[in-house]
Amino acid sequence: MAVQTVATTSDSTVDLGPAAALSCRECGHRVPLGPVFACEECFGPLEIAYDFSGYDTEELRRRIEAGPANIWRYAPLLPVPADVADKPNINPGWTKLVKADNLARELGVTGGLYVKDDSGNPTHSFKDRVVAQALEAARAFGFTTLSCSSTGNLAGAVGAAAARAGFRSCVFIPHDLEQGKVVMAAVYGGELVGIEGNYDDVNRFCSELIGDPAGEGWGFVNVNLRPYYAEGSKTLAYEICEQLGWRLPDQIVVPIASGSQLTKIDKGLQELIRLGLVEDKPYTIFGAQAEGCSPVSTAFKAGHDVVRPQKPDTIAKSLAIGNPADGPYVLDIARRTGGAVEDVTDPEIVDAIKLLARTEGIFAETAGGVTVGVTRKLLKEGVLDPAKTTVVLNTGDGLKTLDAVAGTGLTATIRPTLDSFREAGLA
Amino acid sequence: MAVQTVATTSDSTVDLGPAAALSCRECGHRVPLGPVFACEECFGPLEIAYDFSGYDTEELRRRIEAGPANIWRYAPLLPVPADVADKPNINPGWTKLVKADNLARELGVTGGLYVKDDSGNPTHSFKDRVVAQALEAARAFGFTTLSCSSTGNLAGAVGAAAARAGFRSCVFIPHDLEQGKVVMAAVYGGELVGIEGNYDDVNRFCSELIGDPAGEGWGFVNVNLRPYYAEGSKTLAYEICEQLGWRLPDQIVVPIASGSQLTKIDKGLQELIRLGLVEDKPYTIFGAQAEGCSPVSTAFKAGHDVVRPQKPDTIAKSLAIGNPADGPYVLDIARRTGGAVEDVTDPEIVDAIKLLARTEGIFAETAGGVTVGVTRKLLKEGVLDPAKTTVVLNTGDGLKTLDAVAGTGLTATIRPTLDSFREAGLA
Repeated sequence: MAVQTVATTSDSTVDLGPAAALSCRECGHRVPLGPVFACEECFGPLEIAYDFSGYDTEELRRRIEAGPANIWRYAPLLPVPADVADKPNINPGWTKLVKADNLARELGVTGGLYVKDDSGNPTHSFKDRVVAQALEAARAFGFTTLSCSSTGNLAGAVGAAAARAGFRSCVFIPHDLEQGKVVMAAVYGGELVGIEGNYDDVNRFCSELIGDPAGEGWGFVNVNLRPYYAEGSKTLAYEICEQLGWRLPDQIVVPIASGSQLTKIDKGLQELIRLGLVEDKPYTIFGAQAEGCSPVSTAFKAGHDVVRPQKPDTIAKSLAIGNPADGPYVLDIARRTGGAVEDVTDPEIVDAIKLLARTEGIFAETAGGVTVGVTRKLLKEGVLDPAKTTVVLNTGDGLKTLDAVAGTGLTATIRPTLDSFREAGLA
Repeated sequence: MAVQTVATTSDSTVDLGPAAALSCRECGHRVPLGPVFACEECFGPLEIAYDFSGYDTEELRRRIEAGPANIWRYAPLLPVPADVADKPNINPGWTKLVKADNLARELGVTGGLYVKDDSGNPTHSFKDRVVAQALEAARAFGFTTLSCSSTGNLAGAVGAAAARAGFRSCVFIPHDLEQGKVVMAAVYGGELVGIEGNYDDVNRFCSELIGDPAGEGWGFVNVNLRPYYAEGSKTLAYEICEQLGWRLPDQIVVPIASGSQLTKIDKGLQELIRLGLVEDKPYTIFGAQAEGCSPVSTAFKAGHDVVRPQKPDTIAKSLAIGNPADGPYVLDIARRTGGAVEDVTDPEIVDAIKLLARTEGIFAETAGGVTVGVTRKLLKEGVLDPAKTTVVLNTGDGLKTLDAVAGTGLTATIRPTLDSFREAGLA
């Protein structure tokens, strides 16, 4: 992918709150804020560098607690202008942290088990968090079209956010997607373009478009706006800690697709410690993959630092990234915090979806089955400590992956009579 | 339906907070709190009578504002114990009140237009509110099984709430429902029983079961727990007013199935006025139906006081009650507040779903298409005042009624090249 230079605007006119610059995660080279994503020196990934100087801890805490019931309560810690809550946006976040006592009993967790349930977001996945950030960056850079390639959750999140904010949206998908997914992406009325080819072809085309004059004014949320977009995942860390009463959890289980979410949760926790909003104590981060797309867990178990790409084959489509860009960073964080990366099979994913629904009334998408399934496996293996406070992420909604549990059905069929009811043993 | 006497427990042992008794809406006869729903004197519907004496307005307001971000912030106004927030429940509510500026522009509303978006509830419909109340009543009466008849939203809400609270659940549905709906109801792991017959047969069977020893310990949320269940809709009124800054809206557009929700929203607004939490000023309530099931709007337009049953035939299945129990009360409220009851056709419902998605990024189920469609129609007819603050309810999620917008699809199909992109006129 070519490195794009800042095209639309320069540092001096951009107000993205505490975001000070873009910084290369590999070589530390800094460039002004702009719609760029790769370092011009070493091609490493760029991320946001903040200026949090001048924050008073107690004043910051009060400001957050008095903020709106969405991610903008954390505006002082995000690459967004201070008045972000007044702009039209989809306003995701502040989703429920469910104390999962029934699930804890089934799994033998005694230290407190929580599910962070991001199915409560506006389009029912965590993607609303990252798209909301990308939208503010797009606004700051003067973009007028919001775009992405997607086969699922991201398409809906981009379509909905663009509609609310009055942006044009243009989402690219493989032309032969299932009709249900096409409907979910198309209903927001933006442009939905089918590409004759597979998902790789769609991505290649999007990269071409960004480098072409035809793509001018286009913000691809997860390409040229990626440094801003990715920061949205920090809000999961902020919310978990605030909802625990400004406490760090001991253990967190996070799904891995590109790996970006896990790295940003770690970044968010580190920020809270540095700002004094939580006590500085150890925490452990675990990564969860589907066996059918487990490049990071394979590398973890083999003790490798590099991640060898895989060809995905799993029902957990929202995690099916065979060549995860942030894989090496994930390995580093799992090892540094004393965690692990584990994977579960498709049948284990389905079992875990049903387990979570049956114990807590939460209907997760396949990615939630992956995290709950991996939690169960890590407990059995003695890797996850049942006596510690543990948070498991559910990043999406079961209504979007109904096929995974399609076998679930009627307990009994009876005639509409009490006799038939008794015969069926239901009394 | 037979009138059931209090079977499980008596007034003296039941702690349901400010709920003092059950009172007949027709003759005013009072009975102790219990799992009964019809007056033993006149067969009229029973509803909760409260004792709100001793509440100080400012103290109450502070208590609510300091409460949790769910319906239990209003515990002092609901038939639930004071410590309800500590019990396992699905904790619905405090859903977004979206300022719908884009939709307002399209419709020509200048006085402020809001969408109360109940798709943000745990199982993505307003039914979570009413089931959460029924669950607390079931607990108070010593029931161990939560039950209902349903063909959609209610089944999921009961299944999820029972799972969280550790109740057995048993949901009755027609045996030949579409597989997708069966999966949504079955995933929570409770008993799901198919009845050989149509929805009327299912309901008849449930009424029989309640009167039989086999039904002992069973709480049917919308039958023997109906007086408690119905109160959950009051929380929509409370939240709308609090989210408007403790102000009454001028106009509210509410969908009508049984009509219960509309009557309880009116009850909630009246309570806020009486308690001094909002200013006492006029408001207007509009009811919305699908033309294919419009018994109440037909009666309204004809100037009748009684509602003649209809055989439903509409895509708005969650509103398809042909003989709405609270129809006469709805007519009374619409007339008393200067409102109206209107209906829209199935194509108008689909158009309105797309309009809301395109302007505000909210993907509503068909019931949301009904309220938005009726709002548009009432504005055109000059019945709804565009210069007044208006709140439109969306009570469910588009993901559950995908078929309604199945025609929505790709804007274009192109080859993965810039030339093909330009030829399609997308640049």
